[in-house]
Amino acid sequence: MKAEVVTIGNEILSGDTVDTNSAFIGQKLTELGIQVEWITSVGDRREDIGQAFEAALGRVDLVIVTGGLGPTHDDVTKKVFARLFQKRLVLDEQILERVRTRFQKRGIIMPQINVEQAMVPEGVKLLENRSGTAPGFHLEQGNKHIFLLPGVPKEMRQMLAGGVLPVVKELARGEEICRLTLRTTGISESSLFEKLKGLKEMASVAFLPGYSGVDIRITIRDSRAGERVQAVAQQIRRLAGDFVYGTGKETLEEIIGRQLRESALKLAVAESCTGGLIAHRLTNIPGSSDYFERGVVTYSNESKIQLLGISAETIRRYGAVSAQTAEAMAAGVRKLSGADIGLSITGIAGPTGATPTKPVGLVFISLSTTEETVSKRLQFGDDRLVNKERMSQAALEMLWRKLKVTAKEYQ
Amino acid sequence: MKAEVVTIGNEILSGDTVDTNSAFIGQKLTELGIQVEWITSVGDRREDIGQAFEAALGRVDLVIVTGGLGPTHDDVTKKVFARLFQKRLVLDEQILERVRTRFQKRGIIMPQINVEQAMVPEGVKLLENRSGTAPGFHLEQGNKHIFLLPGVPKEMRQMLAGGVLPVVKELARGEEICRLTLRTTGISESSLFEKLKGLKEMASVAFLPGYSGVDIRITIRDSRAGERVQAVAQQIRRLAGDFVYGTGKETLEEIIGRQLRESALKLAVAESCTGGLIAHRLTNIPGSSDYFERGVVTYSNESKIQLLGISAETIRRYGAVSAQTAEAMAAGVRKLSGADIGLSITGIAGPTGATPTKPVGLVFISLSTTEETVSKRLQFGDDRLVNKERMSQAALEMLWRKLKVTAKEYQ
Repeated sequence: MKAEVVTIGNEILSGDTVDTNSAFIGQKLTELGIQVEWITSVGDRREDIGQAFEAALGRVDLVIVTGGLGPTHDDVTKKVFARLFQKRLVLDEQILERVRTRFQKRGIIMPQINVEQAMVPEGVKLLENRSGTAPGFHLEQGNKHIFLLPGVPKEMRQMLAGGVLPVVKELARGEEICRLTLRTTGISESSLFEKLKGLKEMASVAFLPGYSGVDIRITIRDSRAGERVQAVAQQIRRLAGDFVYGTGKETLEEIIGRQLRESALKLAVAESCTGGLIAHRLTNIPGSSDYFERGVVTYSNESKIQLLGISAETIRRYGAVSAQTAEAMAAGVRKLSGADIGLSITGIAGPTGATPTKPVGLVFISLSTTEETVSKRLQFGDDRLVNKERMSQAALEMLWRKLKVTAKEYQ
Repeated sequence: MKAEVVTIGNEILSGDTVDTNSAFIGQKLTELGIQVEWITSVGDRREDIGQAFEAALGRVDLVIVTGGLGPTHDDVTKKVFARLFQKRLVLDEQILERVRTRFQKRGIIMPQINVEQAMVPEGVKLLENRSGTAPGFHLEQGNKHIFLLPGVPKEMRQMLAGGVLPVVKELARGEEICRLTLRTTGISESSLFEKLKGLKEMASVAFLPGYSGVDIRITIRDSRAGERVQAVAQQIRRLAGDFVYGTGKETLEEIIGRQLRESALKLAVAESCTGGLIAHRLTNIPGSSDYFERGVVTYSNESKIQLLGISAETIRRYGAVSAQTAEAMAAGVRKLSGADIGLSITGIAGPTGATPTKPVGLVFISLSTTEETVSKRLQFGDDRLVNKERMSQAALEMLWRKLKVTAKEYQ
């Protein structure tokens, strides 16, 4: 089965929006053994959209379209589609009701223009949109399938998973393809590559470096793909397991959440240079209030003294960016909060704040438990936002490693 | 002048690589007043590449191709191109020498396969590649121009700037194109559209909704584009100015930083449901330590009592998610920190934590100054991460509005 993805929107052509939808759809179809052969992007002009539809239907069996389903003047995908397939647009009362309710819930009267969203091509299957107002559509014509989805990535992804993939999976019946991603942190791409030198099936492995670490992706297309992927993953864990924290899309904060929950430990965090990012990441996990007791973002020296009980003398003598201050922060937040573990970070995110002895990117991380308070010095680069990401990841890594040991002790 | 971008590579179709090249090229051409009308991505198959070339040349004057110029078996762009335009591939000694030197410098003997890179279509202009081994090509045929560039973003960008843009700038000769983005917050796309109904030149306006608000982008192509864009922007500000916080890529936290700096005010933040995201956003701005005094992420009731001086009675009586608690948080963090303004937020990010009277998405935001402490109740949806984004934006919006008034009072 061959597929084409058509993405619609002037903002894609002008480069204002990077089209991530087509890559996402490409991935999902590839996983089902369906080959995406073309990706076409056109603007909001009717002729171009019509031409793109016709070209796609002429060369593939499955066409997935995103974008142009909104309520404003430049959203014309539905109209072009209706004309091409000679479908009348009719008002769907149920959709209108749903859109109206969405607005009501937020205490807003529905603007009249949203009635447009409830106009649907006759005789076409509707795909429900649980996060937005525009429904999607599915038309089967001969052996060809065309799906229209909204361009908002979150809505598109939800509808792809709920309304598209189950249908095309049935249609595809193909060679098994199996993929697995192992996520690492605390090691560079080239060091990781060196560690994995002895790996058989290196050809099936890709390295994807990011700010939070390097992902190792294994892809195998074979009748025994599942087994073989597991064998490669096992080999990788044997060679570099100490750096592997999770699989797939798992995040370090998710793993840490699980560790804390299983050990029934509570955490408190004191941040300076990461400015709340560590707390933000930890609290992105549903249910994190069970183990995340509090966070403090002690940007000023006074707040370090007041909220963490650090002595002014420590800061004066060693500086706010020092191992001593980091340790006092971790111990302070732990003691004052009554949590089991205190995690702290203090450093210079940049671009300003450097001193002759303390360059931008310098950071101290500390971890405090009832048994001990330890700290670690690291040096990062000079981009503020990248530094915040990397520093927060390094702090979470330190916590993750500690919790791995703790969990073993409990066994 | 109309353009098409053709990107080549199986990795784009399978979604392993997000195609950022086409967005980058789209931006650069748009800046020169050249309209990109299509973006097409195909894999490494000769027929598809040939078809994509022919389709593009049939509908536009300028075709920019990236990818498939490497030395390996799946790099066939050059071959397809040579056959389509009936050009012989001949060895270019100079390029061969350059490639060989690159390898020598790195102490590696050039693999034989790289000779392939020195084979160039006869009678075609070469584009030098300063960061890689594959040269690019430029062919003029009638009034049509086709450029072949490598797919590696760094090499592509360099060659686009050096070898492509100067040429096409000459060809595009000068209709001016002018763009401006106005950023709004606190209003839905459709309500904004209603407000702007009376707008002349609606055709030049695009609405780009996101979690932090709706961007309004004005694009005008005309000999007086600059003036006309300014006129449209002025009209928009007249109709919906109360919701416009900035232009271009400005963020609300950036604007707030400027407001706080100009008014010489210090800010302290107490967060519950946003879990540190507000502090994270505010501290993303370089130099924010000048006005951001501290943040606290008071997830537990104890931390609210301990760090903010809220009475246990207030929490018991009204609940942690209430106007009363929000106001006590804002006033508490302001007083204890000695900052001029206290901003607080407490709510239910979800998916858990709802009660019969307090649904997921409910949030109270409060702002406290020496004159008054006010609060606001809002209702969002049920996605935790989206809620954190939207809630943080709503809190920053409240602060931004207050600071606008404050600034006026100072005048």
